[in-house]
Amino acid sequence: MSGRTARRRVLRIRLPDPPDGAAAATASLAAPHMSEWSDLLAAEEPLGIRVAGEALTMTMRTPGDDLDLAAGFLVSEGIVRSPGDIATIMLCDGTSCGHAGHDGTGNIVDVELRPGLAVAPAARRNFMTTSACGVCGKASAAELFVEKTWDINEDQAAIPAGWLTSMPQRLRDAQRVFASTGGLHAAGVFGADGELLAVREDVGRHNAVDKVVGWALRQGRLPLRGCVLLVSGRASFELVQKAVLAGFPVLAAVSAPSSLAADLAEEAGLTLIGFLRGGSMNVYTRGDRVMADVPAAS
Amino acid sequence: MSGRTARRRVLRIRLPDPPDGAAAATASLAAPHMSEWSDLLAAEEPLGIRVAGEALTMTMRTPGDDLDLAAGFLVSEGIVRSPGDIATIMLCDGTSCGHAGHDGTGNIVDVELRPGLAVAPAARRNFMTTSACGVCGKASAAELFVEKTWDINEDQAAIPAGWLTSMPQRLRDAQRVFASTGGLHAAGVFGADGELLAVREDVGRHNAVDKVVGWALRQGRLPLRGCVLLVSGRASFELVQKAVLAGFPVLAAVSAPSSLAADLAEEAGLTLIGFLRGGSMNVYTRGDRVMADVPAAS
Repeated sequence: MSGRTARRRVLRIRLPDPPDGAAAATASLAAPHMSEWSDLLAAEEPLGIRVAGEALTMTMRTPGDDLDLAAGFLVSEGIVRSPGDIATIMLCDGTSCGHAGHDGTGNIVDVELRPGLAVAPAARRNFMTTSACGVCGKASAAELFVEKTWDINEDQAAIPAGWLTSMPQRLRDAQRVFASTGGLHAAGVFGADGELLAVREDVGRHNAVDKVVGWALRQGRLPLRGCVLLVSGRASFELVQKAVLAGFPVLAAVSAPSSLAADLAEEAGLTLIGFLRGGSMNVYTRGDRVMADVPAAS
Repeated sequence: MSGRTARRRVLRIRLPDPPDGAAAATASLAAPHMSEWSDLLAAEEPLGIRVAGEALTMTMRTPGDDLDLAAGFLVSEGIVRSPGDIATIMLCDGTSCGHAGHDGTGNIVDVELRPGLAVAPAARRNFMTTSACGVCGKASAAELFVEKTWDINEDQAAIPAGWLTSMPQRLRDAQRVFASTGGLHAAGVFGADGELLAVREDVGRHNAVDKVVGWALRQGRLPLRGCVLLVSGRASFELVQKAVLAGFPVLAAVSAPSSLAADLAEEAGLTLIGFLRGGSMNVYTRGDRVMADVPAAS
């Protein structure tokens, strides 16, 4: 996992416990405990994605699974939908192209699409939110949405509630880098049988999602019918878009969704679950896919 | 607070407690408890920022404090540094310019800079990460950094550790929208005497920071010498950049920093604190500004 974490010096300061009852007089005289050591931090570095030699976007990400990240980004933006849409995809190794990151590994992914496929000018404009106004005249949520690749509305997934409530702990258990740094978001794909198929981590939640989606594309698993996309933290508009473009019928988040996330989920027919923790959940849209299963007797 | 929250229908599902001892047989037969009600979500809507009539950027934000958000963004990018740098700043009200959001309020902020001040082509290129490669040839963290407006290296701030450990709870107590939705990040400014000067909330942590920085600009308080910027969640490269460009000597985060955040803090002379919670903290850079105070006897 070279490059996913970085070691830095840290000064740890711990205050004495607050005065309480009989111990107050002595506790209040104690100085903070200070210690210095070397700590692991989650690595954050820029990654540029180029298509046909032209820069498409740049993101700050945790190195690792960079090809999946680039492939997943292209899925999330509706540019590719099958493995064959990508002719070649490669990471500059830092020597061949001179784009080395801090640790000497590459920070540019070069993509060539299959003959006949190109990034539509409209899609390029979508990323260039600064050179053209991405908002003017867009009064409805629908207009913000990238055109859907798959129709998930008819997906007949039926996920037992008990499976869903078990997923956050299973995702956390599978997070290798988080365990060492406490600093990474995660995205996980759970299959139709409830099994954990893939986990990816990143300093950016959107990157973690692009990484699992890119993994699925390259495995020939799109659309992800019957599957659940689980994300640490909150669910924003952007994550709903990524879930829909990858063909997930269900997006579950450990924390709160935004209003626009709920609106777009409703429109796309996506089941949106929030506050999935401690044996309970809030279902904002398409609750028909959550099965009120009765747990088997132990 | 019209527009900061939105009401949506939600289905709440709670599983019965897991079987445990004598109660196992009955608990395992209980069906999940399901209830439906109307819940408040944090609002998320697009905001476009235009300078001199030209679109500069677009961000997904929680409506409210939009002028502060736009002003703070311009500070964070090194474009303005004093209130006089902004000649006019106004929110389209949705009727005069036709850019209404979901709730009829505006979603475009129009900024005119003072005569002689313009967005440098290099700065515009910085946002247009898709039309020009923002990464090519940038092998060091230093080159990613926007040129610093203030030199914070010499800031003599000395913050008692006990003040720092009290700040997260004080920030949380001041979060009005979070209390109703559980879905918002916050940024707070603490003054040199430890008082909480301003709190702003947003679905995006970077927006919450831009909102407090814009507030400070418009109050004539930049640079924020001696002050602490506290953010909920993690500290990324982007937040360190915003703290430095606003002249804060200290950035504290409730959760983990990234490696690049620590690198840039080191270079700029910013005190970077992470994992500020429960009476302790990790200090990654410039620990000389944290005072190991002995609490007064109660």
